[in-house]
Amino acid sequence: MKDRYIADIQINEEIISYFIVKKAAIKIGANRKAYLDMTLGDKTGEISAKKWDVADEELPGFQKIKEGSVLKIKANVTEWNGQKQLRVTRIRHTGAEDNLDMSDYIKTAPEKPEEMYNYIYSRAEAFADQELRSLCTKVLEARKDKLMYYPAAQKNHHAELGGLLYHVKRMLMMAERVCEVYNVLDRELLMAGVILHDMEKMTEIESNELGISPGYSFEGKMLGHLVLGVREIEKEAEAMNLSREKAIMLEHMMLSHHYEPEFGSPIRPLFPEAEMLHYLDMMDAKMYDMEEAIEKTEPGNFSERVWTLDNRTIYRRREDD
Amino acid sequence: MKDRYIADIQINEEIISYFIVKKAAIKIGANRKAYLDMTLGDKTGEISAKKWDVADEELPGFQKIKEGSVLKIKANVTEWNGQKQLRVTRIRHTGAEDNLDMSDYIKTAPEKPEEMYNYIYSRAEAFADQELRSLCTKVLEARKDKLMYYPAAQKNHHAELGGLLYHVKRMLMMAERVCEVYNVLDRELLMAGVILHDMEKMTEIESNELGISPGYSFEGKMLGHLVLGVREIEKEAEAMNLSREKAIMLEHMMLSHHYEPEFGSPIRPLFPEAEMLHYLDMMDAKMYDMEEAIEKTEPGNFSERVWTLDNRTIYRRREDD
Amino acid sequence: MKDRYIADIQINEEIISYFIVKKAAIKIGANRKAYLDMTLGDKTGEISAKKWDVADEELPGFQKIKEGSVLKIKANVTEWNGQKQLRVTRIRHTGAEDNLDMSDYIKTAPEKPEEMYNYIYSRAEAFADQELRSLCTKVLEARKDKLMYYPAAQKNHHAELGGLLYHVKRMLMMAERVCEVYNVLDRELLMAGVILHDMEKMTEIESNELGISPGYSFEGKMLGHLVLGVREIEKEAEAMNLSREKAIMLEHMMLSHHYEPEFGSPIRPLFPEAEMLHYLDMMDAKMYDMEEAIEKTEPGNFSERVWTLDNRTIYRRREDD
Amino acid sequence: MKDRYIADIQINEEIISYFIVKKAAIKIGANRKAYLDMTLGDKTGEISAKKWDVADEELPGFQKIKEGSVLKIKANVTEWNGQKQLRVTRIRHTGAEDNLDMSDYIKTAPEKPEEMYNYIYSRAEAFADQELRSLCTKVLEARKDKLMYYPAAQKNHHAELGGLLYHVKRMLMMAERVCEVYNVLDRELLMAGVILHDMEKMTEIESNELGISPGYSFEGKMLGHLVLGVREIEKEAEAMNLSREKAIMLEHMMLSHHYEPEFGSPIRPLFPEAEMLHYLDMMDAKMYDMEEAIEKTEPGNFSERVWTLDNRTIYRRREDD
Amino acid sequence: MKDRYIADIQINEEIISYFIVKKAAIKIGANRKAYLDMTLGDKTGEISAKKWDVADEELPGFQKIKEGSVLKIKANVTEWNGQKQLRVTRIRHTGAEDNLDMSDYIKTAPEKPEEMYNYIYSRAEAFADQELRSLCTKVLEARKDKLMYYPAAQKNHHAELGGLLYHVKRMLMMAERVCEVYNVLDRELLMAGVILHDMEKMTEIESNELGISPGYSFEGKMLGHLVLGVREIEKEAEAMNLSREKAIMLEHMMLSHHYEPEFGSPIRPLFPEAEMLHYLDMMDAKMYDMEEAIEKTEPGNFSERVWTLDNRTIYRRREDD
Amino acid sequence: MKDRYIADIQINEEIISYFIVKKAAIKIGANRKAYLDMTLGDKTGEISAKKWDVADEELPGFQKIKEGSVLKIKANVTEWNGQKQLRVTRIRHTGAEDNLDMSDYIKTAPEKPEEMYNYIYSRAEAFADQELRSLCTKVLEARKDKLMYYPAAQKNHHAELGGLLYHVKRMLMMAERVCEVYNVLDRELLMAGVILHDMEKMTEIESNELGISPGYSFEGKMLGHLVLGVREIEKEAEAMNLSREKAIMLEHMMLSHHYEPEFGSPIRPLFPEAEMLHYLDMMDAKMYDMEEAIEKTEPGNFSERVWTLDNRTIYRRREDD
Repeated sequence: MKDRYIADIQINEEIISYFIVKKAAIKIGANRKAYLDMTLGDKTGEISAKKWDVADEELPGFQKIKEGSVLKIKANVTEWNGQKQLRVTRIRHTGAEDNLDMSDYIKTAPEKPEEMYNYIYSRAEAFADQELRSLCTKVLEARKDKLMYYPAAQKNHHAELGGLLYHVKRMLMMAERVCEVYNVLDRELLMAGVILHDMEKMTEIESNELGISPGYSFEGKMLGHLVLGVREIEKEAEAMNLSREKAIMLEHMMLSHHYEPEFGSPIRPLFPEAEMLHYLDMMDAKMYDMEEAIEKTEPGNFSERVWTLDNRTIYRRREDD
Repeated sequence: MKDRYIADIQINEEIISYFIVKKAAIKIGANRKAYLDMTLGDKTGEISAKKWDVADEELPGFQKIKEGSVLKIKANVTEWNGQKQLRVTRIRHTGAEDNLDMSDYIKTAPEKPEEMYNYIYSRAEAFADQELRSLCTKVLEARKDKLMYYPAAQKNHHAELGGLLYHVKRMLMMAERVCEVYNVLDRELLMAGVILHDMEKMTEIESNELGISPGYSFEGKMLGHLVLGVREIEKEAEAMNLSREKAIMLEHMMLSHHYEPEFGSPIRPLFPEAEMLHYLDMMDAKMYDMEEAIEKTEPGNFSERVWTLDNRTIYRRREDD
Repeated sequence: MKDRYIADIQINEEIISYFIVKKAAIKIGANRKAYLDMTLGDKTGEISAKKWDVADEELPGFQKIKEGSVLKIKANVTEWNGQKQLRVTRIRHTGAEDNLDMSDYIKTAPEKPEEMYNYIYSRAEAFADQELRSLCTKVLEARKDKLMYYPAAQKNHHAELGGLLYHVKRMLMMAERVCEVYNVLDRELLMAGVILHDMEKMTEIESNELGISPGYSFEGKMLGHLVLGVREIEKEAEAMNLSREKAIMLEHMMLSHHYEPEFGSPIRPLFPEAEMLHYLDMMDAKMYDMEEAIEKTEPGNFSERVWTLDNRTIYRRREDD
Repeated sequence: MKDRYIADIQINEEIISYFIVKKAAIKIGANRKAYLDMTLGDKTGEISAKKWDVADEELPGFQKIKEGSVLKIKANVTEWNGQKQLRVTRIRHTGAEDNLDMSDYIKTAPEKPEEMYNYIYSRAEAFADQELRSLCTKVLEARKDKLMYYPAAQKNHHAELGGLLYHVKRMLMMAERVCEVYNVLDRELLMAGVILHDMEKMTEIESNELGISPGYSFEGKMLGHLVLGVREIEKEAEAMNLSREKAIMLEHMMLSHHYEPEFGSPIRPLFPEAEMLHYLDMMDAKMYDMEEAIEKTEPGNFSERVWTLDNRTIYRRREDD
Repeated sequence: MKDRYIADIQINEEIISYFIVKKAAIKIGANRKAYLDMTLGDKTGEISAKKWDVADEELPGFQKIKEGSVLKIKANVTEWNGQKQLRVTRIRHTGAEDNLDMSDYIKTAPEKPEEMYNYIYSRAEAFADQELRSLCTKVLEARKDKLMYYPAAQKNHHAELGGLLYHVKRMLMMAERVCEVYNVLDRELLMAGVILHDMEKMTEIESNELGISPGYSFEGKMLGHLVLGVREIEKEAEAMNLSREKAIMLEHMMLSHHYEPEFGSPIRPLFPEAEMLHYLDMMDAKMYDMEEAIEKTEPGNFSERVWTLDNRTIYRRREDD
Repeated sequence: MKDRYIADIQINEEIISYFIVKKAAIKIGANRKAYLDMTLGDKTGEISAKKWDVADEELPGFQKIKEGSVLKIKANVTEWNGQKQLRVTRIRHTGAEDNLDMSDYIKTAPEKPEEMYNYIYSRAEAFADQELRSLCTKVLEARKDKLMYYPAAQKNHHAELGGLLYHVKRMLMMAERVCEVYNVLDRELLMAGVILHDMEKMTEIESNELGISPGYSFEGKMLGHLVLGVREIEKEAEAMNLSREKAIMLEHMMLSHHYEPEFGSPIRPLFPEAEMLHYLDMMDAKMYDMEEAIEKTEPGNFSERVWTLDNRTIYRRREDD
């Protein structure tokens, strides 16, 4: 069990704890000897770690250290130029016997996957429109296993374990609320669009079960999740004999939800539910990114530039304001 | 009282009713005689009307007909090439004695100004933050008279009697709802931003009491309602001794709510409430425009191109879908 | 049989011939009487035609005149301000008994549909790759009827009877030739891409059997022929059990052949055959438009601005140069 | 007193002189010992300097070395790969007793602040328009202290001690001259616009008394100097009871002088003086940047790419041409 | 001699005066008779003129009326819908015997061509640099005849008799002045660039001797005056054996003076004189357009939108401000 | 003679072979001693090479090592972190006596310059149009020496020995083929355009006789090869008394072949041969870049991002597909 987190480590103490490997490389030191240079992490942050003077017989073992694996580390906490650093003295690979809880090590959505899934599923199950109900529940059931861990992106917003579910759930909460204000909207068509809109991200990007994506799949690069989404709805629609108008409208929602051609939508939304789907998607992504930026910033200050927010620096107001 | 509407007029009948003048011009007919060529309107639509063979002594009276005035008209309903047309036989100017209800003739927000105002005012009055409460109630009170009729635009979305209040009210309803989902947002700061964001439209554009705007004011053209908004908040903030951080943040919300420089915001939103203000503004405008487009379109068809929606044609689904 | 063409008509003669109706409307003349105002056409051009002083009993018949129908016309050729004009004296609707050959009246590709089809089909039939051969011949066979008349566009390049076949055939001729120069290209993959790339235009746009398109279909507007193409290949690929790599590459060629996001391709070409498909498509469209512009221009002059060529004016060199 | 400048230092000599610290960091050397790695500067350039083998007891002192402070340095001039480098042997912090003249160390406008200020002030004082005279002299007086050192930018053009005054003064000289050629211009309105246009840079960016700006202020980031300028003129105008037209025109000049929305002006200039103000601003910035680029370039060569000149490389002609 | 100008004509009087023909067409009137419909002009404005009921024998003469010719007209001044209109009773073609002074009829630069030419020539003649002196005086001499009337554009800024000289002269006045402020500039190189920069407009556009351009020449369309300018300088440089550096720099100034690729400069200015040439060109064009817009606008109002000023509406301040 | 290539070198062997120097620098090692750090290359790739512990007396010799020179190297092949590296033990400069064949060391077009030249020349010689024949053969003859080695670019496509000839030859092959399909094209005008279009690259960029370009020339930077091309054709045309229309059309082809203003063409193509020239140019460049990307990529994978292909990653299909 992990009991020491990076955020809490003090200089000059000696620690023994588990960390996930973010980067690892063997380098030559100033003394012409090899050393192991790692960036270690847990859910509270990252820290630089060095194992100096690696002996030749240690090299093969160290070369096997992979990003994403968890190591048990013994180290002294030193400081260099104001940054904490671990001077590692012992390293052990971990296994099942360590009973690791991965949520200690990786970025995870703030709600439990099972609960988010149930929330979404229950909404789909309650649809009055029987076609939309069948379609959405079927899609959710068929993908339940992967939904339990898939991130919503390789990097950027919701790139975290369960991120896809979290993204869909918050958008679904918003979808219900916008329909209270704008009654031009068909509530269930919008909600179905929300549930389905990013499902093909699970084809587009690859992900391990920690919700960490190594990149795009062949189909993902060649077609993208929007067009894959069209293709998938079409298959389901044919299999279920969905009404043509409804099928095409849902396919259009898949295709148009990025809105701008340069962001992947060759056609802009052509009816209110498609239009609103885009805004719900944007709002959720922006709120996610802003929240993240603010968490890393002191009150009364501006964050670092955030690439996904057009390189803006985000202001965190003073607490006592 | 108006009892016949353009949408209901039948060919070949003779009608007597009131209409608002949209366009009027004296022209020379094929027989070298003058005729009066008008476009008449009411809240249900527009119709072409001709008064043929105008006598010289009638000319001075007809030359006084102004756009926006309401006439009492007697006419036969004819048809030419599939379009209804009025062959006018009598024209009378109207006055107080006609007891005109302008909402019969002009585009009007679907809720009563007084009620919308009260809704918004009550929200401001309930703010826990005393500074925002004072600022918003003061601004609303000082502008109450004009708010009763001001449109939110010269043309485009919410260009209608009471349109500004309607725009603010719907955004305010949304503001309360987004804060239920995104708790990074300060609810009252966002709501204050919504209430204040377009107040200076009442300086930027001119409007008569029918909510019809003849165009932009001198200050409006030179500075725009965003910068006028900054200037206005600054004056109020100094007068009220508002905290500097809050004042600047509100001013920034005024300035950044159009988001893109080419739409008038030299600076993009730099905190979550400013970001969300923009999306609430966009969503309300888009839903308004889509609703309008759909109302004018038959089920199963696409609308005409809508300029404010990037020239898209909007689809209206089949009713029985 | 049509024996007089618009390009050959002389002023002051009286003619009897067939013309297709491009526009027709009943208007009021200077003498307050109705007249029929038409634009008539044949494959050599267009001419204005007036039937003056229409009697009330003639109106119902004239109101039935539709664009696209062919009329038999008796008329005197007059001139006004340098333009030829027909003063119509007799009009007759036509029927089967007139044995009309529509190619006299409408824009038609310069080669016979059957021959173009056979050219394309024979190329597909000769593929060494059995999967591509089956796919392409099957697609061609299934669409043969519509291919006989479909234009390649509603307006712009190849908007003519048989235009789609002509576009594909010329691109196919080029595809064979580029593979002689660039051997990085897989000849059959490129040729298959050419054959398939615009097939879903037959879903995207509607067309009558004269190759005249009244506009886009519901699916066409909502998804576009690129995405429809992806969807269609996927269905065929699943049905035929095509290799996944080949299926996805063909789908990518459908999706990417417009190259730029703002022209409908959310993803740019990612392999040489997809890249080349785009250039062959562009070249064929541009050569078509330039040829058209030059035909309408006198040697030594510039054409009118051509919208599809970025509003350029195209120069026609002096013949004897 | 500084008597040796970086541009004149010779390899192999030993020097004792004063330098300003541009960068300083403690690093670990190849021998695992700490060393102090600095970039030192004076008005003639920069040089790398190393103090090797720092003892533990020296560290606290070296850690206090700040950018912008001036050190007295004893060092040997060495060379590495064609670059001069200082091998530092002694370091001393400086104080009042060193009688430092900062213009030896930092970039400074080529004219004396007092003289530039007087030039500008005398022009304002000579205005025939009493309102503009009062406004401009008041603004200049109120800001005189800061004007004595403020740069016109954090980096880029006129980022130097007294740079803001220099920028305004040269523009003012041009303003007088353009009015000799273009008499559509109101000379005093244009000159007032020049004097006021960048005043709020002193709010937007922060600066120490050396004219070195650490960055933007909170208000600067949130509103920018253009909008701050509008706000400031408005306050002054209200206080002075300036005519509304003149106030709004000046405010518009503040707002529009960057011309393009993407450079911060939501509205383009709407009268000749506003238009010309922009061009005078641009010309002065461009001439400044070109002059700088040329100074660093050998005759007959192109400069490095200059970011503020759209990455152009500027050509310096041969002297004897 | 022309003694009555359009701006001064009164309703109901009968006039006899000369006017230039802006447009002329024979049309059919409401009474089925031909009438001559003209727009007549002089330097003070334009007026609509009708000659009703044209007899068949008059037609050949009226058909010979050309745009740009001057007619002697007898007419009654009537009014229709608030616009003055001439009811023409007599028309006579004019000839040498009428001693017409074209400046009464057409737009003309405000200074005499001969004087402007002499101003420019005297500056060139005074160059200390003998190469630049020879080049500029030679170019001016060779083109003197055409310079006496050429406009600087087909439409837009300086599209007037002598407009090219006026444009060059004002820029030259500015060139001398900017060199007083910015001494990085080589005064004679800049002045030579100004004199030469638009010379090839006389090849690019065609013009009659009234300074009215019917459009672009073949070479103008194919190459443009910037590239033609490069070509021309090169020929002159070779003939005169000009130093290569100077020749290339002048050619570069020809090529780069429109600055942006989309305005015709494939390469941006690469030295200060080229940069400044662009700004002087822009400033002169903008001041010209603004001046024109303001002349047509009442004090306290905004002009119509001006296409060459990015569709801005220009404000004219109140006189007594 | 070179007998060992980088692609074939094995770890742990000792080699003696020739390599071209891509980069060379003297650096300080961890042990405070100087070492020589080089990147060596041959036509099969590049490898890192270190000569450790350089003695003071060796330094002068090593400092003379220039990029582009060929060295004879003795070294042990080591490995560090998965990369092969040479530990150099002996270095010798080479000379004529080594009989180096530069095509072993540098990137070279896949066909012999002489043969490519002859191919192109023979096509020009066969022109029926005598003017084009004279022009093209003259231009080719005059530039034959430089054509034998010139690359078509400094970097990017065809940046290789003989690259310019290879680029022109492949385009010429295509030009003949497109004329078989599109008979609107004048075959010889197009072919002449192809032969001439990039000739002034030999003025624009500099190149040594290995086809390696150090960069742009003064004229190249100031005018670019498109405008230089116009200038050159004009000179030849005047000298040969070429027909004006033909000369201007060829000059236009020079100027417009980059198509977009932002890529250097201020005017877009205005006739079919100019249009097609652009597409042939593009296609050849794209096929070149794609071929290169694919060669470096394993089947079934995507390449690295390719800058000249808009940063796309190119897919190489599986061999056995």
